[in-house]
Amino acid sequence: MTYKIDRQARCAVIGYGSWATALVKILLENESAVGWYIRNNEVLEHIRQHKTNPRYLRDVHFYTNNLKLSDDINTVVSEADVLILAVPSVYLKTTLEPLTVSLQDKFVISAIKGIVPEDYVTVTEYVNRRYGVPFDQLGIISGPCHAEEVALERLSYLTVVCKEMENSLSLGEKIGTSYINVSHSTDIYGTEYASVLKNIYAIAVGICVGLSYGDNFLAVLIANSAMEMSRFMEQTYPAERNTFASAYLGDLLVTSYSQFSRNRRFGLMIGKGYPVQSAQMEMNMVAEGYYASECITQINKKFDVEMPIAETVHRILYDSEKPGPLIAKLTGHLI
Amino acid sequence: MTYKIDRQARCAVIGYGSWATALVKILLENESAVGWYIRNNEVLEHIRQHKTNPRYLRDVHFYTNNLKLSDDINTVVSEADVLILAVPSVYLKTTLEPLTVSLQDKFVISAIKGIVPEDYVTVTEYVNRRYGVPFDQLGIISGPCHAEEVALERLSYLTVVCKEMENSLSLGEKIGTSYINVSHSTDIYGTEYASVLKNIYAIAVGICVGLSYGDNFLAVLIANSAMEMSRFMEQTYPAERNTFASAYLGDLLVTSYSQFSRNRRFGLMIGKGYPVQSAQMEMNMVAEGYYASECITQINKKFDVEMPIAETVHRILYDSEKPGPLIAKLTGHLI
Repeated sequence: MTYKIDRQARCAVIGYGSWATALVKILLENESAVGWYIRNNEVLEHIRQHKTNPRYLRDVHFYTNNLKLSDDINTVVSEADVLILAVPSVYLKTTLEPLTVSLQDKFVISAIKGIVPEDYVTVTEYVNRRYGVPFDQLGIISGPCHAEEVALERLSYLTVVCKEMENSLSLGEKIGTSYINVSHSTDIYGTEYASVLKNIYAIAVGICVGLSYGDNFLAVLIANSAMEMSRFMEQTYPAERNTFASAYLGDLLVTSYSQFSRNRRFGLMIGKGYPVQSAQMEMNMVAEGYYASECITQINKKFDVEMPIAETVHRILYDSEKPGPLIAKLTGHLI
Repeated sequence: MTYKIDRQARCAVIGYGSWATALVKILLENESAVGWYIRNNEVLEHIRQHKTNPRYLRDVHFYTNNLKLSDDINTVVSEADVLILAVPSVYLKTTLEPLTVSLQDKFVISAIKGIVPEDYVTVTEYVNRRYGVPFDQLGIISGPCHAEEVALERLSYLTVVCKEMENSLSLGEKIGTSYINVSHSTDIYGTEYASVLKNIYAIAVGICVGLSYGDNFLAVLIANSAMEMSRFMEQTYPAERNTFASAYLGDLLVTSYSQFSRNRRFGLMIGKGYPVQSAQMEMNMVAEGYYASECITQINKKFDVEMPIAETVHRILYDSEKPGPLIAKLTGHLI
């Protein structure tokens, strides 16, 4: 029997970064109780006492009566039907490590954009393989969405993706608010890979900005990135999908054009001549697109999709090739 | 017999704005002589004496020995085989008015993005109807391309479009330089309408910025604009075209995301509450997208393509409806 999300399904959010905080805010608009797993005790206590997250979206005030806060992941998971994963992909494995409760009767939603490092699989693929959650109990919440704008209640669009449209619709009811418009889709593969690929393209944009390319060229690069993304999906997993929709092109645009995008900033440093490791140290974290680049390269060995932009980024990041000449070469492949 | 542009074909540019000036600069990289019609005598004399255009791209220095400058359009046209029109569309008719020389044995390229006001036809359609130039002697040069970046020799892409691919290629040789990459196409209809539509969408973006919508929403709006543009072309003039290419999506991106776009600035004022006429007076000119909006609305009466964004812009500009509530309604139609 297929798993059905109903109106009574209890939701919990795993993570306490800006996106997790935004998702809790959204859920509280519709739900009378929301579980929230916060590993960091200091943050947890601050939210309990001051009703705000001390680190992210500090202006968002929580009615803590409706929050079921806990630093025990097993408690949070036991008391929920729908789990929303919202930690940076690099912390996913360690976050789930203490888990002893089974996930097999849960519906698990990834709000994480990226690849699980080392494993080089998407988040839903990882949860499926490692925790035995079948794909009809897996889903995605996808942008284009800066958490900061959600905090300000500026109109944003989220796409909810589940294998069964009925579940997308039910979940959509839990996250639609006056400032969140919800689109629905069943294209888990396409949406998840779009959000992985866009980080690679945002790195490419950053590199080119670092190399002093102008707006005319960036528009060409981003249009060609959209084309490459669309080609990758068509050739690796054909499906009825409109890659102009917000979950694909929209997400690429918001990331590529935002100067606050971590991946774009990482690329910018590379373009300006920083070695990869120095850029990572300077940023105090690894940009998601760094792992995405290796993962897509591995996958594409099988499919051999024409991806000059992603290949160029990979050669710059992993083969220590100089960005200047490689980007110059790339310019001849864009249309 | 079909008209062929050969290597010896003599080129001339009509107009002295920033885009005309950039095109003359580009042509001079490849041609030993370039005709240039400049209606304004003061500007003409300044270029003769000081070798720079006093009004636009002032840093561009011209080797005037290779320029055949004239304030007589008939002289310029007589001495050229390929004419490149680069005046704002609102001045096209008056610019061509003094013409007594026939255009029927010329190749006429429009570098104008827009609609001929009052006539509500594209530039190639106008030249075809009014001057009897057949479509196989008509072409387009299309962006994404800010003239200012061409002046700085920052890498930009131009798409050359002629009905015969051979002519696109020949013309491409005349405008390809170290800082201009040329793509080729035969899709006159699609390219010209893309450059018309994008001005309408840039107005929509401006309106939404004026109404304080954020980056998340703008990405959704622009992605949906690309989708609407693609749908319009598919339903009005089906052809083999990749609407992700720079001449379509790239051009939309550079215009929509540029704060210097006149259409976006015009929209911004409307969004902030200026009446249409005050915004036009304030800008001291009419944004191309204003005419485009009426033109597309007229055309679409026949085709009835679903175009919620273009329709919303039209109702705001021509029916004096308040932007706030109309955009709020539009948000429900985006995906």
